[in-house]
Amino acid sequence: MPETPHRKAIENARQLLTGRLHRTPILSSQSLNRLSGAQLFFKAENFQKTGSFKARGALNSVLNLSPREQSAGVATHSSGNHGQALAWAAREVGVACWVVMPENAPKAKVAAVREYGGEVIFCAANLPAREEGLRQVQNRTGAHFIPPYDYWPTVYGQATCAAEILEEEPALDALIAPVGGGGLLAGTCLSARAFSSGLAVYGAEPEGADDAFRSLKSGIRVQELEAHTIADGLRTTLGEITFPIILERVADILLCSDQEILAAQRLIWERMKILIEPSCATPLAVVLRYPKVFANKRLGLILTGGNTDLHPYFAQLAQSIDQG
Amino acid sequence: MPETPHRKAIENARQLLTGRLHRTPILSSQSLNRLSGAQLFFKAENFQKTGSFKARGALNSVLNLSPREQSAGVATHSSGNHGQALAWAAREVGVACWVVMPENAPKAKVAAVREYGGEVIFCAANLPAREEGLRQVQNRTGAHFIPPYDYWPTVYGQATCAAEILEEEPALDALIAPVGGGGLLAGTCLSARAFSSGLAVYGAEPEGADDAFRSLKSGIRVQELEAHTIADGLRTTLGEITFPIILERVADILLCSDQEILAAQRLIWERMKILIEPSCATPLAVVLRYPKVFANKRLGLILTGGNTDLHPYFAQLAQSIDQG
Repeated sequence: MPETPHRKAIENARQLLTGRLHRTPILSSQSLNRLSGAQLFFKAENFQKTGSFKARGALNSVLNLSPREQSAGVATHSSGNHGQALAWAAREVGVACWVVMPENAPKAKVAAVREYGGEVIFCAANLPAREEGLRQVQNRTGAHFIPPYDYWPTVYGQATCAAEILEEEPALDALIAPVGGGGLLAGTCLSARAFSSGLAVYGAEPEGADDAFRSLKSGIRVQELEAHTIADGLRTTLGEITFPIILERVADILLCSDQEILAAQRLIWERMKILIEPSCATPLAVVLRYPKVFANKRLGLILTGGNTDLHPYFAQLAQSIDQG
Repeated sequence: MPETPHRKAIENARQLLTGRLHRTPILSSQSLNRLSGAQLFFKAENFQKTGSFKARGALNSVLNLSPREQSAGVATHSSGNHGQALAWAAREVGVACWVVMPENAPKAKVAAVREYGGEVIFCAANLPAREEGLRQVQNRTGAHFIPPYDYWPTVYGQATCAAEILEEEPALDALIAPVGGGGLLAGTCLSARAFSSGLAVYGAEPEGADDAFRSLKSGIRVQELEAHTIADGLRTTLGEITFPIILERVADILLCSDQEILAAQRLIWERMKILIEPSCATPLAVVLRYPKVFANKRLGLILTGGNTDLHPYFAQLAQSIDQG
C-alpha cells in the first residue's frame, strides 16, 4: 500500500482521539541515561486512559464503525488490556460492549471491564473456547467484533502514540516498542515512515515468545507459539495485517530474557517512580542488552501500560500492620 | 516573627533551588476525584531528586552555609530520605558528607547514600547512639550538622513545595501535607500565609504516631512517642522550631489508621500508576476519612516521596520465572 493512505488514516485517528485520550507525557531519567549510555525518552502510556495504549486502538475502532454498526454494540475476547480498553471506549461513545474472558482471568481485570460498563461472559481458558464464546455473543446480539491488534483501525489508533512522540521529539534516532500481536509495532512503523525521514523502529520481544523474531528472520509468519514469559501482554503471535507491515519496515526485532525484563522493570520503578507492567519493560531491556547498537543514540521507548498485580507488595505491608 | 522575613526566606530558597531541583508535576485523577467527592491536585514529590521532597530542605541548608562552613562538609543521622537527600545535596554543591545510619537501616537506603557520594557510619539502632555517632563525626571532621526538620533553612526549603503548588493552582481551598517532624507542614503553613489569602492547611498524621495531633489539642509539644505505623517517614515528633509554626497556623491535624493509609496508597498506585511510599498516602487517607470536611473542595495534596521497599513485588515475579 502506498504511504499516503496510511498517513491520512493516522491523521484521522489523531483527530478523532484528541480530547478523549490523555496526551501522555514523555519522561526522562538522568540515571537511566547514564546506565544505558543513550538518551532515553519514555512515552508513558501507563498513564493513558484504562492504564495502557490499547485505549487508542479500541477507541479509534469504535469511532470508525458506522452508526448502524455502533447501534448493535461491540464485542471482543480478551484476558488483558484490550478488554478494559474496549469497554471504556464503548462507554465513551455510548455503545454496548461484551467481553468474553477466560474463567481464570485475574479478578482485577474482570472488575475493570465491569467498572467501565462492559458485560463479561466467561469461557474456558483456551483460544477455541474464547472464539466460540465470541461467536455466541455475536449471534445473540449482532455486536461488531473489535480484534485486539489484527485490524486496521486498531493499528492506526496505536500509530498515534508514535506520532505524538515524533511531534515532541523530532530528532530521535530510533523508536523501540514491545511486540506481541504487533498492533503497536506496526502502527509505530507506519508513523515513523509517515512523520519522520527514515527513523529506525525496533521491536523488543521476550525470548519466551519469540515468534516475531523468527518470523522476521524467515520471512514466514510463525503462527504456533507456546509462550513462556512473564510479559503477559506479549504472548500472542503476529497477525495477518501486522506481520507484512513489520516485515517490510522494522529495523530489527531484538530479544531479551525474562530476567532482563524483570531487571529493566525494576529500574523503571525504582528510578522513575512509575508503575509499569512487565511487558513494557522490554524496550529498556533490549537497550541494556545491546549497548553497541544504541550507544549515544536518542531513543524513544514506549512504556505500554501499568496494569499489573500489586497484591504481593500490599499483602506484605498489610502483614506488617497485623504484626504492628 | 512577622511574615515578611518568612516570605523573603522562602523566595530566597526558591531562587537558590531553581534549576537544581525538578519542578515536579501536579497530577490529577478523575477516578480519585469521583471517589473523594473533591477535586484533588497531587504535587508529585516522589519524582523529586532523590525520590522525595527532602532534597529541597537539604539543598537549601547546604547552600545557606558560609563557604567556610561548607569547606568542612556536612553531616547528619538518618535512617530515611533525609540522609539520601543530604548526600545528594552535598555532591551538588561539592562538599563532603557523612551520614550516621542505624546498623539495621535498609540496604537500599545505605546504597543510595553511598551512590550519592556520602560516607556512611553505622551505629546502634537507637537515638542516643545516633547522636553519639554524629558527635564523633563532627569532632573528627568539623562537619556542620544539617538536621532533618528542626532547622530554619530546612523548613524554608520544604516551603518551596507549597509555593510551587500555589503558583500553579492559586484557587485552592486547602493544602494537606503529611506530618512527622513537621518540617514540610511548617513550611507549607508559612507558604500558605505568604502566597495566598487565608488558604487552610491540614496535617495528615497516622494514629500510631499522633504526637502532632495531641500537641495541637493540648498546646504543649509531645516529645515522647512510641510510634507504631507503617508510615516510616512519620515516626518522629515535632521540633522546637516546627511546633510553634504549626500550632499558630494549621487548620487542623487529622488522623488516619494504617489500614486507611494502605488503602489510600493502593488507590494512588492503581489509579495513578505512580509509586509513592506509605507515609505520603496520609493526605488522601484523611480526605477519604473525613468526606464532610472536604466535600467539593479544591485540595492540594503533597505526595512526599516514592522510596519504598519493592522486594515483595519483584520476588514474586522472579519466582514465577523460576517456575517457568
